[in-house]
This record gives sequence, C-alpha cells and structure tokens, in this order.
Amino acid sequence: MKKNSTNLRVQLPSLVFALEVLIVVLYALFVTYDDHTNALLQNNMTDHTENAVYQDYTFFADIQVMIFIGFGCLLAFFRRYGFGGMVFNFLTATFSIQWAILVQGFFSFNYDGKIHLGVINLINAEFACAVVLISFGAVLGKTSPVQLLIMALLEVPIFGVAEWIVVTYLKINDAGGSILIHLFACYFGLAVTFILYRPNLNDCHPNEVTSYHSDLLSVLGTLFLWVFWPSFNCALTLRGDDQHRAILHTFIGLSASTLTAFALSAMLNKNGKFSMADVQNVTLAGGVTVGASVDMMISPVAAYVLGMLGGMACILGYKYLSPFLAKRLHVQDQCGIHNLHGLTGLISSLASICAILLASEETYGPSLYQTFSYRAPKVGDPRLEELQKLIPGLEGGLGRTAQEQALYQVAALGSTIAIAIVGGVLTGLVLRLPYLASPTDVSCFDDEPFFNIPPDQAFITETEKDISLEPLDIPNIP
Amino acid sequence: MKKNSTNLRVQLPSLVFALEVLIVVLYALFVTYDDHTNALLQNNMTDHTENAVYQDYTFFADIQVMIFIGFGCLLAFFRRYGFGGMVFNFLTATFSIQWAILVQGFFSFNYDGKIHLGVINLINAEFACAVVLISFGAVLGKTSPVQLLIMALLEVPIFGVAEWIVVTYLKINDAGGSILIHLFACYFGLAVTFILYRPNLNDCHPNEVTSYHSDLLSVLGTLFLWVFWPSFNCALTLRGDDQHRAILHTFIGLSASTLTAFALSAMLNKNGKFSMADVQNVTLAGGVTVGASVDMMISPVAAYVLGMLGGMACILGYKYLSPFLAKRLHVQDQCGIHNLHGLTGLISSLASICAILLASEETYGPSLYQTFSYRAPKVGDPRLEELQKLIPGLEGGLGRTAQEQALYQVAALGSTIAIAIVGGVLTGLVLRLPYLASPTDVSCFDDEPFFNIPPDQAFITETEKDISLEPLDIPNIP
Amino acid sequence: MKKNSTNLRVQLPSLVFALEVLIVVLYALFVTYDDHTNALLQNNMTDHTENAVYQDYTFFADIQVMIFIGFGCLLAFFRRYGFGGMVFNFLTATFSIQWAILVQGFFSFNYDGKIHLGVINLINAEFACAVVLISFGAVLGKTSPVQLLIMALLEVPIFGVAEWIVVTYLKINDAGGSILIHLFACYFGLAVTFILYRPNLNDCHPNEVTSYHSDLLSVLGTLFLWVFWPSFNCALTLRGDDQHRAILHTFIGLSASTLTAFALSAMLNKNGKFSMADVQNVTLAGGVTVGASVDMMISPVAAYVLGMLGGMACILGYKYLSPFLAKRLHVQDQCGIHNLHGLTGLISSLASICAILLASEETYGPSLYQTFSYRAPKVGDPRLEELQKLIPGLEGGLGRTAQEQALYQVAALGSTIAIAIVGGVLTGLVLRLPYLASPTDVSCFDDEPFFNIPPDQAFITETEKDISLEPLDIPNIP
Repeated sequence: MKKNSTNLRVQLPSLVFALEVLIVVLYALFVTYDDHTNALLQNNMTDHTENAVYQDYTFFADIQVMIFIGFGCLLAFFRRYGFGGMVFNFLTATFSIQWAILVQGFFSFNYDGKIHLGVINLINAEFACAVVLISFGAVLGKTSPVQLLIMALLEVPIFGVAEWIVVTYLKINDAGGSILIHLFACYFGLAVTFILYRPNLNDCHPNEVTSYHSDLLSVLGTLFLWVFWPSFNCALTLRGDDQHRAILHTFIGLSASTLTAFALSAMLNKNGKFSMADVQNVTLAGGVTVGASVDMMISPVAAYVLGMLGGMACILGYKYLSPFLAKRLHVQDQCGIHNLHGLTGLISSLASICAILLASEETYGPSLYQTFSYRAPKVGDPRLEELQKLIPGLEGGLGRTAQEQALYQVAALGSTIAIAIVGGVLTGLVLRLPYLASPTDVSCFDDEPFFNIPPDQAFITETEKDISLEPLDIPNIP
Repeated sequence: MKKNSTNLRVQLPSLVFALEVLIVVLYALFVTYDDHTNALLQNNMTDHTENAVYQDYTFFADIQVMIFIGFGCLLAFFRRYGFGGMVFNFLTATFSIQWAILVQGFFSFNYDGKIHLGVINLINAEFACAVVLISFGAVLGKTSPVQLLIMALLEVPIFGVAEWIVVTYLKINDAGGSILIHLFACYFGLAVTFILYRPNLNDCHPNEVTSYHSDLLSVLGTLFLWVFWPSFNCALTLRGDDQHRAILHTFIGLSASTLTAFALSAMLNKNGKFSMADVQNVTLAGGVTVGASVDMMISPVAAYVLGMLGGMACILGYKYLSPFLAKRLHVQDQCGIHNLHGLTGLISSLASICAILLASEETYGPSLYQTFSYRAPKVGDPRLEELQKLIPGLEGGLGRTAQEQALYQVAALGSTIAIAIVGGVLTGLVLRLPYLASPTDVSCFDDEPFFNIPPDQAFITETEKDISLEPLDIPNIP
Repeated sequence: MKKNSTNLRVQLPSLVFALEVLIVVLYALFVTYDDHTNALLQNNMTDHTENAVYQDYTFFADIQVMIFIGFGCLLAFFRRYGFGGMVFNFLTATFSIQWAILVQGFFSFNYDGKIHLGVINLINAEFACAVVLISFGAVLGKTSPVQLLIMALLEVPIFGVAEWIVVTYLKINDAGGSILIHLFACYFGLAVTFILYRPNLNDCHPNEVTSYHSDLLSVLGTLFLWVFWPSFNCALTLRGDDQHRAILHTFIGLSASTLTAFALSAMLNKNGKFSMADVQNVTLAGGVTVGASVDMMISPVAAYVLGMLGGMACILGYKYLSPFLAKRLHVQDQCGIHNLHGLTGLISSLASICAILLASEETYGPSLYQTFSYRAPKVGDPRLEELQKLIPGLEGGLGRTAQEQALYQVAALGSTIAIAIVGGVLTGLVLRLPYLASPTDVSCFDDEPFFNIPPDQAFITETEKDISLEPLDIPNIP
C-alpha cells in the first residue's frame, strides 16, 4: 500500500474527468460571449479598433507569462522537484483559470442568466489563479497533484466569496491586489500548511536543497515575474494616467526592493555572500508593497521607500520569522510566502490607508473622484453634476470621506484575512483525507513518485541512496 | 571518409553563401517597401498612429517568441541533442522566414513587378516558417544542418504553391491554419522521414533519452508556445470581435487539452505517473483543434470540447499509432508530429466543416458575411448593397452557400495533404543525395558531429563509451 | 586577509544603502510626475486612450526582457559563473536604470526645477543601462559586484555627458544607438579592462569554459535579444513609417548576420563544426550594423548586406582581433564586445553617413525633413511654411545640408569614442582601489567567492580540486 499511495492512475484521471464534465456542462448551460466577442452585437456603428481585446490582450499575455513561466520556473528551485514545481504549477494554473472563469462569472460577470466571456474575464481569472499559486508555495513539495487540484477547487470559490464581499460591499482601493490577492493567498496557504503539518520535516529534509541549474532556472522565473509585474499591477486600473502611474510605481518599487535585497543578503550572511533564495524572492517584494496604492498620486519617492521597506521586511521575515513559525506555530511555509506576500501585503495595506487619508483635490484635481470612485458624490448630489462638467462620464459614487474609505480598507483587510484563514483550515482538513496520493515524508520534494524520471536523474538518486548508509527513519503520514 | 562525412566546413558555407547571394540579388531586384513603410507615400493626410505596424507588431513579436524560443526549447529535449534542437531550429527558422518573404512575395504580395514589404509579410513568413519547423520535428536528430536548409529551401515554395491554390482558388476558412499549416507540415514531414527511413533506429537508440534538465527546458518551450498560441491563431483574423473570439477559443482549447493530457498521461502509465513527453506535447493539442474554426461563433463549450478531443487523439496517437507507423509503415516520426499536428488537424478540419454548416445569420448577424467572406453576395447582387448598409465596407464575395463552402474545405484538406505528401517525397529523395553531411545511425541525436562540445558533456560521452563495452554495430547509411 | 578579500558583508551593503539614501533624497527633492502620469493635469479634454503609456509600454516591456532576461542568460555562459553572469546583470541593470533616470533627468527631462517621470524616461534609462551592461561584458568574471556598481555609478553620468553633447549640440541620426550606445559602451568597457589588465589571465584560465547547460542558457539569452531587438531599435524613432522601417530593417539585418554567422562558424573551424560562442554572439551583429540608419529609406537589400557585413566583421574579430588585443594591447575583452559592438558600430556609423549623403526628397518626399529633422529649414525660412502645408506640425530644423549632417555624424563618432575612452580609463583607475572585493586571479570566473553554492556544484568544485594535483600558482593582484 505504501508504495502505491502516490500512484495517480485512478484518482487523478477520475478527478480531472469529473471536473471536465462539470466544466463542459456549466459552459454549455451558462457561458456565452460578451459584447466584444459576440458577432451578433456588432453593427454598422462598431469601430473594430475599439474592441476591448486591444486594451486587454497585451496585459493578459504578460500575466500569462508571469503565471505559467514566471511562477513555473521560480517554483522549480528544488534539485529533485523541478518537474513538480514547473509542471504542477502548469496543471494547477490551467485548472484554476478555467474554474475561476465560472466562479467569477457566477459572482460578477452574469446577466440574463448567462456568464459573458471576453479577455477581461481571463484577466480576472488569472488573478484568482495567482491566488492559488501563491498558496501553492506554502505546500510545495508536500502535496500530490490530486491535492493541488482539490485545493484549487476549494480555494477559487472561497476567494470568489472574499472578492465578492470586498468588491461589492466594502468597495476598496486595491489596484495591485495586495489585500485581496496577496494577503488572501498568503493566509489561506498558511492555514492549509498548518493543518498539513508534518513534524518530521522540521529538520532539514535531504531533498530540501537546490542544484546549480535549478537555482538558475528559478532566478529566470524571478526575472520574468519582475519584468512583467507592472502589467499585473496595472491591468485592472483605470486607463490613462492611473495605468501609467501603476506601471511607474511598480517598476520603482521593484527596483528599490531589489537593491535592498542584495544589500541585506550579503549583510546577513556570515560569509558576506549572496544567497540565491534571497535573489529569487526578496527582490520581488516591492511589487507587493506598492500594490494597494499603485495607481494613486503617492509620488515616486514613496514608491521607492515602499520598495525598500518591502525588501527589508521580506528578508528579515525569511531570516527570523519563518523558522519561528515553523517550529513554534507549526506553520511550515515552504517558499516563505508569509514574507513575500504576507508582511509586504500588510505594509501595502497600511500604505494605502495613508495614501487615502492624504489624497485631496489639490493633488489629484477632479480625477480624485475617479481614482477613488467611492468618494465621488452620490447620484442626485449637485456636486456630482458640477464634477461631471469637469470629467465627462464620471459616475456617481458613495460620497465617502477619506476617513470612511480608510476604515473600509481596514474592514477589507480584516475580513479578507479571516475568510482566508477559515477557508484554508477547512481546505486543509479536506486535503488530509485518505486516497489523495499525498507523498510520504521521505518522498517529499521529490519528483520520483509522480513522474517518469530520466535516467540521469534516476542514476544520481540511486547513487545517493547507496552512499547514505543509514536509512531515513521517517514514518509515513496517514 | 566516414569520419569526415558530417564535416560542415565546405558544404554548409557554400550552401549558405549561395543562398545569401541569391537572396541579395532577389532583394535588390524585386523587394521594396509597402504602403506603410515607404516614406514617400506618407502625406499630410497620414495618421501615423494608424500605421499597420501597430496592429501587427505585437502579434509578430509573440509569434517570434513561439518560433525561436518556444520551438527552440521544445526541440531541445534529447539529452545530447540540446544544441542541435535549439540551434538548428534557430538556423532553419531564420532562413525559412527570409526565403518565405520572397516566395510568398512572388505569389501574393507583389504589384508593379515588386514585392512590397511590411511587418505583415513577416507574419505570413512566420507561418511558412512554422510549417518547416513542424516538419523538422519528424526528422529531428537524423539530419544535418545542410539537409535542414535544403528541406526549408524546397518546403517553402511547395508550401507556397499549396497556399496559393488554397487561398486564391479554394478560398477556405482556416484562421489558425489547422489545414494549411498543421496538416501540410505534418504530412510533408512524414513523407520526408518515410523516404529517410533508417531501419536501425527502430530499436531504441542509446541517445534517444532525455535528461532532467533537457526535459525542463523542453517544458519551458511548451509553456512559451502555450502562452502565445492565441497570438498565432488570431494574427491573421479580422480585427475586432473575430480576433477576440480567436484568442478566447485558443485559450479555452489549450486549457481543455492540458487537463486532458494530464489525466490520460497518468491513466495510460502503468505506474500512474506523468510522462514528461505528454506534458511537453499533448498539452498543446487544443491549439490545433480549435484552429480552423477559431474565429467562428462556435461557442465556448465547443472550444472546450475540441480541446479535450485534441488531447485524447494526440495522446492515443503517441501511445498506439506512432509505434505502428514506425514499425509497419516505416514512418519514423521523431517528435510525433502526426499526433500533435496531424490527428488534431483532421479533427479541426472536421470541426470547421460542422461550424460552417451550422453558421447562420441568426448567430452572426450580418457579420456572417465578414467571417465567411466567400458567402457574401457577389458584386452586383442587390443583397450586397443591402448588407453594405449594415456593414459599411463589406466587400463582395462569391455568394457561396454553407454547403458549398464546406465542400471547398474538404477540397482544401485533400489537396493540401496531397501536395504535402508529393512534395515531401520529392524533398526526401533530394535529402538522400550524398555529401549533405547526414549523420550516421550511431551519431544520430548527438551534438558531437556538428558542435564543439563543452568539456563536461564530452567527459560524460567519453565515460559512457568506456562503460558500454560492446560496440554498437550499426552500419552507416550511404 | 586574502580569504576575506571578496567578503561583501561590509562594502556592498554600505555602498548600496548610501546609494539608496542618495536616490531617495534626490527623488524627494527633484522627481515628480510628467504630463501623462500626473492626475492633476488630466481634464475634460483628455482622451485617456492617447496617454503616452500606450505608445511606450510595449517597447519598454520588450526592452526589459532584453536587459534582464536576454543579457542575463547570455552572460551566464561560464560553467561556474552562471550565478555571477545572471545575477550581477540583474543587480547592475536595476541600479543603472534608477541612476540613469536621475542623471538623464538632470540633463534632459527637467523643467520647473523638477525631473518629470513617465514610461518614456524608463525607456531612455534602459538605453543607458544597456551601455553599462555591454561594458560589463568586457570585465565579466573579473570584477566584484562592488566594482560593478561603482562602474555603473561612474559610467551612467559619463554616458549622460556624451549623450547630452551628441543630442543637444551635434544632433545626429542614430535611431538604434549604434554610435551613442554601442560604440560608447564598447570603448568604455575596453578602456576599463585595459586598466584592470591581469597578465595571468592571458593563458586560458581553468574556469574559462562553458558547460553544456550554460551554453544552452546563453543561447536562450541570445534568442531573447534577437527576438526583441526590433523593439530596441525602433523604440525612440518617429511613430508611423519610420518605426515600421526600423522593425523591418532590424529583422532583416539580424537574419542576414545569423546566416552568415553559421556559415563562417563552420568554415573557420578546423573540424567544420559550429562554435556555440559564435551562435551566441555573432548572430546578433546585424542588429548593431543596421542601427544608425535603421529608420532611413536604405532599402531592404541594404539592411541585408549590412547584416552580412556585421556577421563577417564580428566573427573575424573574434578569430583574429580579440587574441591580438589581449596579448599585444593588454585589452582583455572577456565577451568580445569589440567584435559585437565596436566593429559593427563602426560599420553602422559609416552606413549612416552613406545613407545621409544619399537621402533626397525623391526617395523620402517631404518626410525627409522629419526623419532628418535637422535638415528641415530654420524657423522663419519661407520653405518651412511650404513644407508645413505638406506635413502639418513639422518643426523648424537647422537647415543643414546632407554633407553637413554627415560631418556631424563623424564628429559624434569621434567625440563619443573619445569621451568613452577617457571615461573608461578614469573608471578603471577607480576600480583598482583596494577594498572593492575584487576577486583574485585564481577565483576569476567563479561564483564561489560571492555566492552560497548549492551542494552539487560545490561537490564538482571539490572533486576537481582533488584531481588537479599541482596547485595553480597565480599570485593575487594587489
């Protein structure tokens, strides 16, 4: 039984085919084209060059690169889990996007009883997918593809609920998704890994090492994420100067966190050398810290400082907080998502609150009521008509004050984290069910249970087994 | 003589310089700028933001990534043929595009006795190049760069003829090129490899294995193809909703084939493990199956089902059909292009016929006569004027019925495959000529004959030679 | 002391934090938003779809890929210096762009006492960054990250001066930066490496070899540069047909240099095999040789011939000139930047002079005075008004003749090279200061001094030390 426990021959195809049938049925019943993809809705007034695809596709493609190639390479950093990192990322991402199209369609993109599809749905679904992949980082190497698919199956709707509450009711500013995406993903992932706690993995597992080429591949992934992160942070902001600022701030924030990462990596290492794990992760912190206020007039210097703070918090988290979480709180955060997405997300939330409290018509002009659309006067308020002379097409808002908006940010922060933790705990409990092909402790971080391994790698594995005379005495988790 | 047979010192430079001189002469005599690149044709009415380059360049660049990086990495999957896979792809692609610019210019882009160049020509040439690279997959590792250049030299014009017949006379719907590109490339490549049949390679060649890193690199190539495939399928469709649908359907189709690939890969493996070859190839099947109807109103669920069918056909082809073709029909299809491009292309053709037969004004509105431009009434027909009120700029068509159009699809299918097979056989016969530096059977799938090998790889090679005491007794092919 | 000489624990963090504080202060005092990123400047006449970000972002992102991924992979070609190549490129590029934003802001993008930021500044800064990275190629593996940051710190302002002189006073045509970027970077880098001459490295260093996978990674970098080079060469040209031609010529030039590289690589190798170093470098030569005239009506055939000449000059340089420079002139040009950027830059300069002398209204029409804006009549000249009827918005120029413009190209060539050499010598002298963590001769081209090395690579290193019984007797450079 032990040998067969990770055999995917029955469970994985059954699960996947069941999901595919479900998706086909739901697509057949509920999914149709949106106004920009439906030929029937084009008429003699249609200017084809103004189809939404030309706004959205570039950002969609950039985020695809981040998700499939950036994340894929980044997660391939273990010496013997390169296939797992890259390929399970591929599988999980593909399923998550499909599933999110339906779930988010149910919550947001439906009318006339149908879900209406265009590239914009794909971008939103990619964000939900990013949530799943970040959480995946917490359990990397300790879960089977069956478990990962089930995690995605549960996390996407739970995220959908959080998104629905935050977007429909709380209505916050969070252009880059630092609250809704990064914090949700982080605390969900931590809750899952807490439930899946494996005491035997607290002492360094022999597979928990990188190789020279896996480190290079992982840096390549980091670079793809780094280069295209501005597209991620700006994809859903308002067109024009808001989107332009989002790109600028993301670039500046990433630059600052990168320099900081190198400085602290050398400083905190007793031999004064760089650690590749820092290069792979900490450099990206600035992309998260600028996220929640990325479209605001925070000034370039603030973006720079946010990047620096992100880099510092992240690297100190790796050095001091992660070991503490693992040993004392039983939270084994494999990729350190709490450092790269949690601490930075908290900084970003705080920064967004400050930026909201400081935002005024002096800095933004009437655009204030676009960037902070909930502060626009309500429909019927005479001030709205006045503003509409200055900004044609401005829609009525909720007439919130800056202080009110700041409080809603806090409420969103709290409720997002709460839903994430509860959802993560429940998901973790489901993942502990038997027959989900979960790897044993010994075979964690190893491709061997799930992949046909090429002879060269198999040879290395075999050789090392011969060398390590004393057998690893790690009991199997039920 | 045997030792020198793969020496490229004379043949390759002679061939390349001859080709370069030919290209320079043809460029000098016939090639000039098109209306969007010629400074002389810009005037005070020109709106520079409407230059065609802004429509075409994004898609061009995406397809460049697919061709040079996607294909290049994908084909580098052999342990000892990584240089060959990636670098011969580079060489062959570069030459094919240049050559296709001239050949397609001769057939399609000429007036005033000149070939007029813009980025749109480069996109078309990239499609011809994709044809060559797909065919290359059938003979990977068994051909010298001299042979590959000659194959490209012959295949591009033969493809040009097929394209000319199909586009100019048969006039079909095939936005993603499933018929014209994938099926042509597949049957051409199969015919070439049939002629180049090497009986000694039917039993597994010792070099026919992957390594851990070559597998990862190959998956990386797959991911680049996967991510940018929507650009490939939409680059030449009508702007607006047609292009939008093409992107959506390609994404959905690829997603479905990817899930299916994972499910069947685990199911068909006796240990219930994933095979990296499946991850590298079968995941992409959906991009081909949606191809011929990618811009039509087939509905999202149909794109999903096409992706699933593609994944199934492709993986079953790898499992059962490819060994049969190799052993019984002497068709040694190295990368299994018949599975990824042939079977899927046939499914796509069939799907396009169904979609054409079902297409009606109810679903498309008057746009029907744009997507299916050959069904538009002929010039002079009063119905055309009526339609032109609804769609300004609609051009007269051929007044075909759906049934007629479906028959033309069948005719295109047949003639494409016929030209491909005849062309492939002739090309194969040329490639069997002596002095083309063809590798011996023993040195197939090996970089050593064509590259200076770095010491680490040379060391591995040397060591393995010592270990395998019994010499491989494979005779040289004349 | 010897052991600690490369310890980065004190110097690197001190330097980086000092730079970060400097950047923060300068940002706080001087940096603000430009007209396209400042919310306050948007009003009811603003068309958000015309924000400059939509012109610039695609090219910006493409050049980011070239800089961080293309250069990063290309420079990772040494077997034991993959981390150094890829990661020091990351660090140096990140700092260079930030620094160039400030330096170029000081020279060019300021008014009202402020530097105004938008994505366009980032593109310009990327060009300055490319300069630093090209120069980096000359000293790859022989410099510490502290030295590289100091080199960037000095090179960016020296380049800023050269740019300011050429752009503000000499006013030349150099769309792809062959003169200002490639020649400057080349001669600056050569001057630095001349000052840092290490006599012990003239005989092949044991680390100066590639591995199979480092060669593949490096080719991958080449392919990224190759694919996106058209974006680099067109990013700052005039919109419309000029940009379209720049893309076309770059593609054609690269294609020609690639074919030529393969032909000559096989021809000049005594075994008739390809050298991967040629594939990695010489293929790119055409991108430089077309650079200075890339937006002109040079005709496609001229772009082709320029690509061929570039490939030839570059490969002959590697074969004959580089060894001569190293041994006789003490210029140890690690990556052969003189071949890929110097010789090709000179060819490109010459070509631009020819193209300028041949340019006439017959070929360009009135657009002549846009592409060659300095040849436009001066303000007040009645011919200007006449031309403005043909080209609305044409600005007054300097009324230069073709001959005058050609002379200015020569002047720019000379002054660029002169500033580069003087600046490079001074920078080299600074880099020879002690306490900059410079590696010893023995530990050149080795990641070990600067990185935590994964166990697999450390194991190889250890094994090789055991094998090589006679210790390398190379004295340390002071």
